[in-house]
Amino acid sequence: MSLSVFEGFLSTPEMLEVFAGPSVVQAMMDFEAALARAQAAEGVISRDAALAIAGVCKAELYDVEAIVAASRRAGSLAIPLVAKLTETVALFNGEASQVVHWGSTSQDVIDTATVLVTRRAMALIDRDLSALIASLLALYERHGHAPLLARTLMQPASVTSFGFKLAGWLAALVGAQQRLHAAAPRALQLQFGGAVGSLATLGTQGPAVARRVAGLLQLPEPQGVWHTQRGDWVSLGCEIGVLVGSLSKIATDWALMGQGEIGELAEPSGAGRGGSSAMPHKRNPVSSMFALAAAQRAPQRVAALLSAMAQEHERGLGNWQAELAEWAGLFVSAHGGLKALADAAAGLAVDEARMLVNLGSLRGVVHAEAVAMRMARVVGKPKAQALLEMLSRRALAERVELKTLALQALDDDAVLRAAVPRADVETLFDPHVAAASAVARADEALARLRPQARALAAAQPWALFLSGA
Amino acid sequence: MSLSVFEGFLSTPEMLEVFAGPSVVQAMMDFEAALARAQAAEGVISRDAALAIAGVCKAELYDVEAIVAASRRAGSLAIPLVAKLTETVALFNGEASQVVHWGSTSQDVIDTATVLVTRRAMALIDRDLSALIASLLALYERHGHAPLLARTLMQPASVTSFGFKLAGWLAALVGAQQRLHAAAPRALQLQFGGAVGSLATLGTQGPAVARRVAGLLQLPEPQGVWHTQRGDWVSLGCEIGVLVGSLSKIATDWALMGQGEIGELAEPSGAGRGGSSAMPHKRNPVSSMFALAAAQRAPQRVAALLSAMAQEHERGLGNWQAELAEWAGLFVSAHGGLKALADAAAGLAVDEARMLVNLGSLRGVVHAEAVAMRMARVVGKPKAQALLEMLSRRALAERVELKTLALQALDDDAVLRAAVPRADVETLFDPHVAAASAVARADEALARLRPQARALAAAQPWALFLSGA
Amino acid sequence: MSLSVFEGFLSTPEMLEVFAGPSVVQAMMDFEAALARAQAAEGVISRDAALAIAGVCKAELYDVEAIVAASRRAGSLAIPLVAKLTETVALFNGEASQVVHWGSTSQDVIDTATVLVTRRAMALIDRDLSALIASLLALYERHGHAPLLARTLMQPASVTSFGFKLAGWLAALVGAQQRLHAAAPRALQLQFGGAVGSLATLGTQGPAVARRVAGLLQLPEPQGVWHTQRGDWVSLGCEIGVLVGSLSKIATDWALMGQGEIGELAEPSGAGRGGSSAMPHKRNPVSSMFALAAAQRAPQRVAALLSAMAQEHERGLGNWQAELAEWAGLFVSAHGGLKALADAAAGLAVDEARMLVNLGSLRGVVHAEAVAMRMARVVGKPKAQALLEMLSRRALAERVELKTLALQALDDDAVLRAAVPRADVETLFDPHVAAASAVARADEALARLRPQARALAAAQPWALFLSGA
Amino acid sequence: MSLSVFEGFLSTPEMLEVFAGPSVVQAMMDFEAALARAQAAEGVISRDAALAIAGVCKAELYDVEAIVAASRRAGSLAIPLVAKLTETVALFNGEASQVVHWGSTSQDVIDTATVLVTRRAMALIDRDLSALIASLLALYERHGHAPLLARTLMQPASVTSFGFKLAGWLAALVGAQQRLHAAAPRALQLQFGGAVGSLATLGTQGPAVARRVAGLLQLPEPQGVWHTQRGDWVSLGCEIGVLVGSLSKIATDWALMGQGEIGELAEPSGAGRGGSSAMPHKRNPVSSMFALAAAQRAPQRVAALLSAMAQEHERGLGNWQAELAEWAGLFVSAHGGLKALADAAAGLAVDEARMLVNLGSLRGVVHAEAVAMRMARVVGKPKAQALLEMLSRRALAERVELKTLALQALDDDAVLRAAVPRADVETLFDPHVAAASAVARADEALARLRPQARALAAAQPWALFLSGA
Repeated sequence: MSLSVFEGFLSTPEMLEVFAGPSVVQAMMDFEAALARAQAAEGVISRDAALAIAGVCKAELYDVEAIVAASRRAGSLAIPLVAKLTETVALFNGEASQVVHWGSTSQDVIDTATVLVTRRAMALIDRDLSALIASLLALYERHGHAPLLARTLMQPASVTSFGFKLAGWLAALVGAQQRLHAAAPRALQLQFGGAVGSLATLGTQGPAVARRVAGLLQLPEPQGVWHTQRGDWVSLGCEIGVLVGSLSKIATDWALMGQGEIGELAEPSGAGRGGSSAMPHKRNPVSSMFALAAAQRAPQRVAALLSAMAQEHERGLGNWQAELAEWAGLFVSAHGGLKALADAAAGLAVDEARMLVNLGSLRGVVHAEAVAMRMARVVGKPKAQALLEMLSRRALAERVELKTLALQALDDDAVLRAAVPRADVETLFDPHVAAASAVARADEALARLRPQARALAAAQPWALFLSGA
Repeated sequence: MSLSVFEGFLSTPEMLEVFAGPSVVQAMMDFEAALARAQAAEGVISRDAALAIAGVCKAELYDVEAIVAASRRAGSLAIPLVAKLTETVALFNGEASQVVHWGSTSQDVIDTATVLVTRRAMALIDRDLSALIASLLALYERHGHAPLLARTLMQPASVTSFGFKLAGWLAALVGAQQRLHAAAPRALQLQFGGAVGSLATLGTQGPAVARRVAGLLQLPEPQGVWHTQRGDWVSLGCEIGVLVGSLSKIATDWALMGQGEIGELAEPSGAGRGGSSAMPHKRNPVSSMFALAAAQRAPQRVAALLSAMAQEHERGLGNWQAELAEWAGLFVSAHGGLKALADAAAGLAVDEARMLVNLGSLRGVVHAEAVAMRMARVVGKPKAQALLEMLSRRALAERVELKTLALQALDDDAVLRAAVPRADVETLFDPHVAAASAVARADEALARLRPQARALAAAQPWALFLSGA
Repeated sequence: MSLSVFEGFLSTPEMLEVFAGPSVVQAMMDFEAALARAQAAEGVISRDAALAIAGVCKAELYDVEAIVAASRRAGSLAIPLVAKLTETVALFNGEASQVVHWGSTSQDVIDTATVLVTRRAMALIDRDLSALIASLLALYERHGHAPLLARTLMQPASVTSFGFKLAGWLAALVGAQQRLHAAAPRALQLQFGGAVGSLATLGTQGPAVARRVAGLLQLPEPQGVWHTQRGDWVSLGCEIGVLVGSLSKIATDWALMGQGEIGELAEPSGAGRGGSSAMPHKRNPVSSMFALAAAQRAPQRVAALLSAMAQEHERGLGNWQAELAEWAGLFVSAHGGLKALADAAAGLAVDEARMLVNLGSLRGVVHAEAVAMRMARVVGKPKAQALLEMLSRRALAERVELKTLALQALDDDAVLRAAVPRADVETLFDPHVAAASAVARADEALARLRPQARALAAAQPWALFLSGA
Repeated sequence: MSLSVFEGFLSTPEMLEVFAGPSVVQAMMDFEAALARAQAAEGVISRDAALAIAGVCKAELYDVEAIVAASRRAGSLAIPLVAKLTETVALFNGEASQVVHWGSTSQDVIDTATVLVTRRAMALIDRDLSALIASLLALYERHGHAPLLARTLMQPASVTSFGFKLAGWLAALVGAQQRLHAAAPRALQLQFGGAVGSLATLGTQGPAVARRVAGLLQLPEPQGVWHTQRGDWVSLGCEIGVLVGSLSKIATDWALMGQGEIGELAEPSGAGRGGSSAMPHKRNPVSSMFALAAAQRAPQRVAALLSAMAQEHERGLGNWQAELAEWAGLFVSAHGGLKALADAAAGLAVDEARMLVNLGSLRGVVHAEAVAMRMARVVGKPKAQALLEMLSRRALAERVELKTLALQALDDDAVLRAAVPRADVETLFDPHVAAASAVARADEALARLRPQARALAAAQPWALFLSGA
């Protein structure tokens, strides 16, 4: 079954593959094989039966499209899969075919398979998040101390440094990765409870079998069934949503700083990247575009996961099924945005000269706060602020530099003149002086963030699963 | 590129096909062909060039997967498509290849293609909505007058008729179809504005070319460009969302009435339908499941469409692209739910006997309001209501029929006894008497709804496009 | 009970008042009074009883806060209200107190009251939407033909006119108002069905009473009960969401055009408007801020309305109650955004000179498409586009005007030189020539939009209800 | 400014108070007082000035409504508040009035105030979550081992125990509380960065002042500014959303189990609780209603928080402001649901007898899986499952007990008869035998959950802030 072209456009082939039929069906097969092996180890079924079952738990033996197609009639992906698996086992070992899927239920195999493919999805996310962080850290080394116009509520505000901006982006990404590393182990749990969750078919052997299945699948010690208790699971989905939110903040800044009139940043260009079918001069910020597109979608995926939590009794009707589809959609779209930013960050063009030009282009009014605060020490904040408000308005209206007006005001006021040396005011208009606090704060932040980023990159909790189960 | 299995499970092959690569690419080709023909008719390009272009505007000539894959780098599906089309035209007619996509921009071809496939999507929705309505109308003929327990806030309330319930479902569906018929023509509009919407390349010929393109694609007279003005478009998406909401109301009622302990309704069963991989006796309401799953998803798709409306300047960054993907997702999931209900409605099993049993099983307290209102005419509503509240509690606690207690109360109270004949009270406990108002109201409603449904079914505004463009 | 300060900040006092306790309670009282009067007219209750009831249906007689507080225990706002009303009627007319709320149920009075206050909300929305449209039309008169840099995907694209931008905003707003005028009459309907919707208590008199209640409340002929069929209702909510989406598009453009480095637009400033507690020179675009804040919220309100549609049986548990709160929240936040834009539009500062400066500041590359298309007529589009792509890159890198490079290229190429007069290329760099198509398209659009806007402003369907019911 | 009545209805007075004007304004004043004291301690301002400022940082001295009203014009709540505070300080100490809010910006005081009131909100949530957990633990003691019909996809499935259900609810709530205890300390952080985040006005003293402000407000060591980096903050909001999701699962089960036809659970009733304005016998599950209403809303609040994360540059336009309002709305509605369930859980009526009756009412088909699995050991799962599928259908159609049919089948089949003793099959129909695995699994789960719940209840991280800052 083919994907909507607009969906594929916004994702990555890697992540699409993770949630596609062959991958999910193989993960279901992995569950069935582990189940058979675990039950053999606990003496529930024979070793031969387990071997016979595990031997055919290979997705490539089956017509995945046909299984998916049949699932719609059955109302569950597991039913046709188990039927086909049973048929296939029967070709080799009639007895073994009697104990396929023994003690298990559809949701066990579907949820566990989703956990297994999500572990691979997490590996991709983690890899590219580390790459993005590394690229931003490298940008800090090169451009961290460059003075930059700070903007609040979409208006020029005052002076900051590009490194201060980078520190903010990095803090958010490092925090996101830390929270993902904490949330995932709670979420990536075996699902195994049988028909209604109590492992009734396996009687007292249930917990031991569950532990063995988890072990074979390299999942943590099971904490019980979570058929209709999706809190830990959805909490991981939320963290993906928050990650996308933090990506969207970065992409927003990139898009704004990359506007033609501003030109402080540019995404890498190259053969065919970001062109236009109509306009020959266009270099569109397509990486920001993918991240912003993901950010339009992830919040709604998360809302769907949350609203699907009211699952009825021992298995939900509609909500569980919707959750699975939204879950896949969330990862597929999140990775589209993350990968795009990671790729672009590695080649991001930073124009320090343009940053200085922009800083200087507003008649110096972005230094108004600093001047006001300096004068405020003498005449108080309200009076100083009112003075600079008036001077800023004049600077813009009369196209005069605020510096000129401020020095004039100093000269004209005996009290100020006595207390504030001219040089003090002049220096406030030096971008590097103005950026000094931002530089210091950012350097402090980086001292904290670098070792955290290093530790996270070293952890690689899902690296093992990067190249498939 | 393959679809997430959980996504495919919740949709229909038909609707998936509408938004899949080949279909969308063909629709883009249809736009390019119509554009060439229109420009030839207006003398912008030569007739030969138009023939050469239109002659290769056939999706099967192209590697759709490769175009989609290349689109990610380009940041637009149209760029690689136009490039391939141009290459192909050049094989036959060098001059014609110079005027491929003339005066147009990526968004023109992508939006118009989306309009064209959405028209086919609307045809599917309309067909199945009419079928669902027809099945419910037929159920009214067979079971409309059956008395039924009414339930409010998930508690037994009073008596209604199954037909009253049907009338409610039908009114919502007929209303949805009316609103869709009104919203779609505003939304299904040609997109054609060139680079920034003003048709600048075509100069004064722009509007005439636009009119001809629309005509060739059987779209209404164009009302101007809507590159970043998505109101009419999103409004149609909202109506799909509302339709899914109305489906979810029906599915909720079906699921509740079909509970084992209630058994008033059952979805059709049959080979493999709604079975369980663990429990041999299960007959799961899988059609309700699909509709309820759609209802978990559609509101979030609509929210995404709405939040993507803040599109910047003359073409949005991320929001437009996200909107297209969410748009497809909305239709894909809506049709999954609609088709499931339409299929099930045709074979819905209604158990009138069980409805009567359930009505009678609550010691008659569901008639308390009727008795209270009868006595209220004599002793006033507050007093009558307090009396019946007490009697109802006793009936349930002491497991006595409310009728017995009510007649006793009548006997014990001289005022009531004088004014209310015993037979009057007795008759209030007759389910058919109790259902009489509901039956009357429903019959009135059906008298309104039947001709409306007939008119809607006769309209079939998109039937022409059912089997592909 | 007091509002969250952050909620109040984003709305308007007028709209907050519409959904506040006193207003909603008065609307509930209006329903009860109309019900009593209608029943007297149909002979269900006595004329004296009706007078007694209607006489005390005045919110100011009751402790609204106490009713709201009691509602939480009861699980319904109507229960304590009806109890208090009954008590009060009893002070004057014992018999009348027996027939208060006769034949009605909580949802009848609550839904109808919500309809009545929503009618007032619609009057406010309609008034301010007309005002916003009028201001934008006036801006068209003053600045419609000014050339403006068009921007796509957040990058300079080509040339448009400010009027073309205005035409887009206007088309969206006029469309929104048309859809609201169509949707509201379907939604603003009497709710009256009694306990389970069938008007059972009133027997055959039910429909006649319903018609009279509707008439007294100036509501349209009732089409039956919609206790759990919320399609028409939610559809109106969706249109409010779409309106907010269209406002957010405008606010996005304003915020982007108002950036310090761009300065094409400015919201009106004035005493205290958009200041900063830290920066004396700041003039924050607070109106855009309110519209953008509304746009973050409305999509989620709409999603909540849609997801609340799966209402169980004859009255929903939780979903109906949530819908009412989200409904109020939607209008409250939508009006915050609409009013802010309407106020600002009246004083929007447009800087045509700055528009020209910005157009000219990019070395003329925004004219690349026009030049390419002119040359394409001679050498074909692919070759012309490749040439201009290269020249644009050079213009930006070498800081030379594209015009110079283009004329040079013309001179250097014999074929081009022969076919394209130099003056033809030169004229393409004239902003007014470049904007000509945009101007023409916008003038055409305005010719359509002006009479539509006039008709909508004249309609004023809810003007009667502007100053309270 | 008054709240929408429908909003107030769904929340609690306690939580509404936390986010209401007086409470938020006091928290803003607490920030300003702590800022003045911290700056005095670091020698930035004089001790006298700090005392003068802190002395009037009392919300009751100010007209909160007027400040909120003025905030709309200013575009920020902080601007009128700082102005009023400065005026008031000036009455007592002119010099001190010059240094009010020194080095700070609007977002510092607003975000920190929101943190402070959120800490109180967390205290309420934590208190009532502990109470709900305690009540469910107590129910386990009383009714944990009662056999109960398990239901999957809204159909009778098999046998579980009421304790197994309780264990699921408890695991979700304990998990939610653990995640909240982990998420809140990351989120509840001082915001303090001055105009653009770099603490420029305070120069090198900035970090020391920040540490002192945090200490005075009992907030953790500051980790830098988070003006536009909202990840940790929104992550806490997500956890509130997940908590509401887990509450909705419980409420869904309660509502379903409390249906008139099922009657296994009932919310406590009492004077006026859950009555109807029309039906005297109604006992509506109003607590479930509040939790379900919250669950319709929280996912959308979370989506709004996530989608508001794309905050521009150094301060967001619209998104930050929307986030604050949605944040308050999330807590206000979550507490409405939580408190309702906590109150009802303390008095929840559990009807073990009815549970047994329901188990027995379905002709024993809910034991079909157990019988199939027993026979499967002899004839294999596919054959056994097919047999029981057929017998189950017959049992329901012919109204015979499945036990009778199963024993008959056993007698009729020589192979089965030889291998399966009759008593083995008979015992499978004993509800207590059928529930044994569920009982065992639940007891194991409770052994894990009880100490976790105890530890969480003992932690009480925000208990100090329960009665206001």
